[in-house]
Amino acid sequence: MKIGVIGAGAVGLYYGSLLQRAGHDVRFLLRRDYDAITRHGLTVTSPRGDFHLEKVNGFRDPSDMGTVDLVLVALKSFANHLLAEMARPLLAEHTALLTIQNGLGNEELLAEAFGRDRVLGGVAMIGVTRGEPGEVHHMALGSIRLGEFKGGLSPRSGQLAAMFTAAGVSCEAIADLKKVRWEKLVWNIPFNGLCALTGQTPGRLLANPATRSLVAEIMDEVIAGGNAQGLSEPISTEYREEMLDSTVRHTGDYRPSMMLDRLEGRPLELEAIYRIPLRYAAQQGVPMVRVGMLQALLELGEPVTGC
Amino acid sequence: MKIGVIGAGAVGLYYGSLLQRAGHDVRFLLRRDYDAITRHGLTVTSPRGDFHLEKVNGFRDPSDMGTVDLVLVALKSFANHLLAEMARPLLAEHTALLTIQNGLGNEELLAEAFGRDRVLGGVAMIGVTRGEPGEVHHMALGSIRLGEFKGGLSPRSGQLAAMFTAAGVSCEAIADLKKVRWEKLVWNIPFNGLCALTGQTPGRLLANPATRSLVAEIMDEVIAGGNAQGLSEPISTEYREEMLDSTVRHTGDYRPSMMLDRLEGRPLELEAIYRIPLRYAAQQGVPMVRVGMLQALLELGEPVTGC
Repeated sequence: MKIGVIGAGAVGLYYGSLLQRAGHDVRFLLRRDYDAITRHGLTVTSPRGDFHLEKVNGFRDPSDMGTVDLVLVALKSFANHLLAEMARPLLAEHTALLTIQNGLGNEELLAEAFGRDRVLGGVAMIGVTRGEPGEVHHMALGSIRLGEFKGGLSPRSGQLAAMFTAAGVSCEAIADLKKVRWEKLVWNIPFNGLCALTGQTPGRLLANPATRSLVAEIMDEVIAGGNAQGLSEPISTEYREEMLDSTVRHTGDYRPSMMLDRLEGRPLELEAIYRIPLRYAAQQGVPMVRVGMLQALLELGEPVTGC
Repeated sequence: MKIGVIGAGAVGLYYGSLLQRAGHDVRFLLRRDYDAITRHGLTVTSPRGDFHLEKVNGFRDPSDMGTVDLVLVALKSFANHLLAEMARPLLAEHTALLTIQNGLGNEELLAEAFGRDRVLGGVAMIGVTRGEPGEVHHMALGSIRLGEFKGGLSPRSGQLAAMFTAAGVSCEAIADLKKVRWEKLVWNIPFNGLCALTGQTPGRLLANPATRSLVAEIMDEVIAGGNAQGLSEPISTEYREEMLDSTVRHTGDYRPSMMLDRLEGRPLELEAIYRIPLRYAAQQGVPMVRVGMLQALLELGEPVTGC
């Protein structure tokens, strides 16, 4: 399959490299890592085994990439104003778009630009960071749940799930993408923001009784906000406890993407992870008070100076 | 009048120095500044005129101070576990105790130890910091509203107000101390905590629309919490706008005491400014959700590193 990867940060490079290793024709739109990767290839370190791709097809300009069968979008959502123009040159009649970006609003943007039928979304649970140019460090997890933006199971979503699975990525096709997006927000909304704001890891937040209660209260708000969106079935209250337990067990020391964004001086994904979810919840009469307070504190700017 | 000052930080040194300058016999319990002040006196800089007190009665041990007519308590409330033992040696039969500490719970503590009849409370609106040992920098404001812990106007509260006024401190005796304490919390709860948490001044918080709204919402919660306490008359909703306007005009660049405490590595006055007000509000069925979230974030520890 011909696959174009847009947004070659840690997540895009990691999944793209696994798909290339599995035999697909993968083309990466690169910026920071263009020179390193086109000259020396791409190195992935991982608890599942390190590997190196000697020859990687990197491009600076999407109009040089040719058309593909699948556009895999892993762009930071704060750059979404550039997304449609980046993706357009890659589209043939049959091309599908799969966005595995964080938060809400990404499928809507692609559907607006290219039509609902082309668009799928995926939720990746993964810990991965970039190292030096040409290096990606996979630390934990990696599974993807993906589905059609318009809902329901399709042959296409099943085929894409099989493709990822064959490449070593645990992947499930799901019928209710909206529910899966909100389930991910149950983790992302408390931990991305609180870790960026306080400079503390999820494990530290959960070790302190006051902030552990706060995380649980925020999760409850997100579950209520999600369950007001007409999901196929509600997110259960047990889901909160599962998330808290699995965070302590698996991702306590993990630095969420928004914490890294702030520490490294990048913009924050406030629109996709906070503003749009708050708007969708408010439209259904669910206020999410603590989430709104967290958003306001993040809007303020740079409380963590990274030193 | 013989006056013992307990808690000789910036606030205690400032008011004590004005009372001594007005002719009162003032005795300061000192710690950090003992050597400097007993050797070289006390220097006050102020937009109202600098002055220097050549001879200041400083003590390391309260049992050396003798009994006084008035104990003025300006101790940081996180040291309240030491307060009763510090004050006890200063008390004669007739001695009154006036606490001008921040937040709630200070009068209760003194009343528990020494009886309700001795206790008055005062709310100081003042910007003052310590400089080098033996130096106090008064920056803005300075007025005190004081009243009996058990409520009502008394001859004693009027006399103390007259004493402060004669010493150059604008001072009013008030009948409803509880109301005045909650009015002060309408400012202290948002700005002390948010400034300590984010490292930003009140003016910066009010210049950003998201955090300005958050400050206003927190003020509304505190007003609701206070108005559930059986005040003589409710705090009005206009009070919020007055506080916001006067903060922009007068104290936008001011660094609240809790922000200074955090920057200088001291404990925070969380019990008096957050935990007790939250408890009193919850007892009346007012949850103060955003205040609780702010408290939890402050409990976490040290997000602002001071660099």
